[in-house]
Amino acid sequence: MPAGTTTENIKQLLKRFKYKRVLNSNPQFKVISLLGLIDGKDAILTVEKTHFMFEDNIKSQQQRDSGESTTKAHLKMGSPPPLFYHCESEYSCVQGLEEIKQITANDIYYWGVGIIKQDLDRNPTARVNLIWPANYVHIKRFEQQNLHFVTETPKMYLDIVKPFIDEQCSGDNLQWVYKILYEGSDADRVVYKDDADKEKGFLILPDTRWDGVNIESMYLVALAYRDDIKSLRDLKPIHRDWLIELNRKIRSIIPACYNYMVHADELRIFIHYQPSYYHFHLHIINIRFPAGNEGLTVGKAVLLEDAIETLAHLGPQGYMERSISYSISDTHELWRNGLEAANLEEFDKAGIPRQPEIRNADGD
Amino acid sequence: MPAGTTTENIKQLLKRFKYKRVLNSNPQFKVISLLGLIDGKDAILTVEKTHFMFEDNIKSQQQRDSGESTTKAHLKMGSPPPLFYHCESEYSCVQGLEEIKQITANDIYYWGVGIIKQDLDRNPTARVNLIWPANYVHIKRFEQQNLHFVTETPKMYLDIVKPFIDEQCSGDNLQWVYKILYEGSDADRVVYKDDADKEKGFLILPDTRWDGVNIESMYLVALAYRDDIKSLRDLKPIHRDWLIELNRKIRSIIPACYNYMVHADELRIFIHYQPSYYHFHLHIINIRFPAGNEGLTVGKAVLLEDAIETLAHLGPQGYMERSISYSISDTHELWRNGLEAANLEEFDKAGIPRQPEIRNADGD
Repeated sequence: MPAGTTTENIKQLLKRFKYKRVLNSNPQFKVISLLGLIDGKDAILTVEKTHFMFEDNIKSQQQRDSGESTTKAHLKMGSPPPLFYHCESEYSCVQGLEEIKQITANDIYYWGVGIIKQDLDRNPTARVNLIWPANYVHIKRFEQQNLHFVTETPKMYLDIVKPFIDEQCSGDNLQWVYKILYEGSDADRVVYKDDADKEKGFLILPDTRWDGVNIESMYLVALAYRDDIKSLRDLKPIHRDWLIELNRKIRSIIPACYNYMVHADELRIFIHYQPSYYHFHLHIINIRFPAGNEGLTVGKAVLLEDAIETLAHLGPQGYMERSISYSISDTHELWRNGLEAANLEEFDKAGIPRQPEIRNADGD
Repeated sequence: MPAGTTTENIKQLLKRFKYKRVLNSNPQFKVISLLGLIDGKDAILTVEKTHFMFEDNIKSQQQRDSGESTTKAHLKMGSPPPLFYHCESEYSCVQGLEEIKQITANDIYYWGVGIIKQDLDRNPTARVNLIWPANYVHIKRFEQQNLHFVTETPKMYLDIVKPFIDEQCSGDNLQWVYKILYEGSDADRVVYKDDADKEKGFLILPDTRWDGVNIESMYLVALAYRDDIKSLRDLKPIHRDWLIELNRKIRSIIPACYNYMVHADELRIFIHYQPSYYHFHLHIINIRFPAGNEGLTVGKAVLLEDAIETLAHLGPQGYMERSISYSISDTHELWRNGLEAANLEEFDKAGIPRQPEIRNADGD
């Protein structure tokens, strides 16, 4: 499939991008997703403004450029408190403000707008992500969604969710995961790799939503080598020791990798349910990573430590023995293919009345 | 006080801004707040990236410039579907991308960075806000808290947290809760009251952070009448039936109270640990409530349904039998009075190395 090979370059592709419609726009996060066509095939373009530049991040960049490994650089530098280096660069939030215009002022409050110094290498203003060719599932994932709250019983899992997961794990759906694990795809981005033992091994790399620069928004993903755990549901007490060891390793390795700009007790490690792909992985973020992401929210994220503790109080079948509550989009295939109906049934059983029929609604 | 008059201009003021330190930095919202000095007086500078330009926004800007109020302009124009006007301007998110550089590509996924076309009048990249002279209260309001991740064992609870809770529940600290429950304080705001049975009764009222208007950001609090449950820690399997009934009532009552603009399966109901006050209460929010609030985050919020399920798998002492993981600010009294030390000990026990001693830090 030549359209999907990586011989194409995002720059060339975007020149041929024909705009169709906005899929989503988030003024709080300064991110917009557009649907368009490239060579007659659907393309999803996501553009997001970058955060302001900090001096300490520029330093780590220079270390990397000068060929030193992060760990070596770390050993040499000790652990500088990062906050004191902010705003000394020509691109920093103070020096980088090239022009300012006042909009209004009142008492001690002043408001204005400004333009900033940009540089494609040293201070880009936008992060750009393109999916091409994009299919229906990709498009749905980017589109604005209505969320519902569902309490998934073991029966609902077996009847509805498990068949979906089996389907998601078939074919080439997880090809990109195996490419990273076994074929060295993204090798230059891998932060840590421990593949000596397939049962216990894992690999850590930055999540694509992280710019890789700002330590405060650090977002990493740990991919397990084992492929027998599709989701939280498959976790059993026999996995506890492995999870404890994973937790220990991650909290030991990551601070060292990032020059102790983030500490062991400043990591939030969690599992998504439902995840976006069914191969066991952990999300690792800086605890300062601002809330404001549905992925961090209770009812989507389950803390690794909480899973470890929960498993200590469950029987041998682990999470299969309990219900799991979470929020899910009504665009999710699971919702449309059974979860909505099953959830309604559960609400009925619990004695929670359905919404009365609307007869004379004002809307359409 | 001439320094605070509006005869000063933000542009001139910022030329004299001497940077002191970063108060807060939010990479997701792309906003940073700095403390500095202007003419020897404290100044708080907040800079935020703007959202991507839409054609419809430019239109509204022109309307404003021509002296029409937004409402009048809106009425005149009808309500144009904004989405179709996106990306037609030279500053739009597609046309406005001046240069693009690919960072990496994998299969159908492409990532890059770009710089955008800026114009101080038509497409500024930053919004700037200055408070000067700023006082201690302003500064505190902007300052970032450092969060830490802690796994509280039952022993840590008994040694450190319980004494703190006992102290928090003594004296007049909870007077405001009892005033609401028994003395009709905030009576006009109460949405639902069920006080026939002190053991089972509860009362629902809007949280002060909700404007009471926008249903998407609906935020309610349910206060229990019983006062024997100080926190999540006190929940035991004997409370399960009561919690199930609470859940049923809330999911039945609230949609009806708000004219079914929010449905039973669109409520996120949760408990905070640590809560801000130690009298059992539930947070009830619209599931659409924008993430972006630390209070919704895993490691702070525990879903009511999850607590109900967790209790089904615990012994008679309930949550007292397990560890609870959460994030806590280093400004929290608990952190300073024992939790930090106990947490370090737990990390030592788990074999997670502490940060190495800093010897030759570059900073001060």
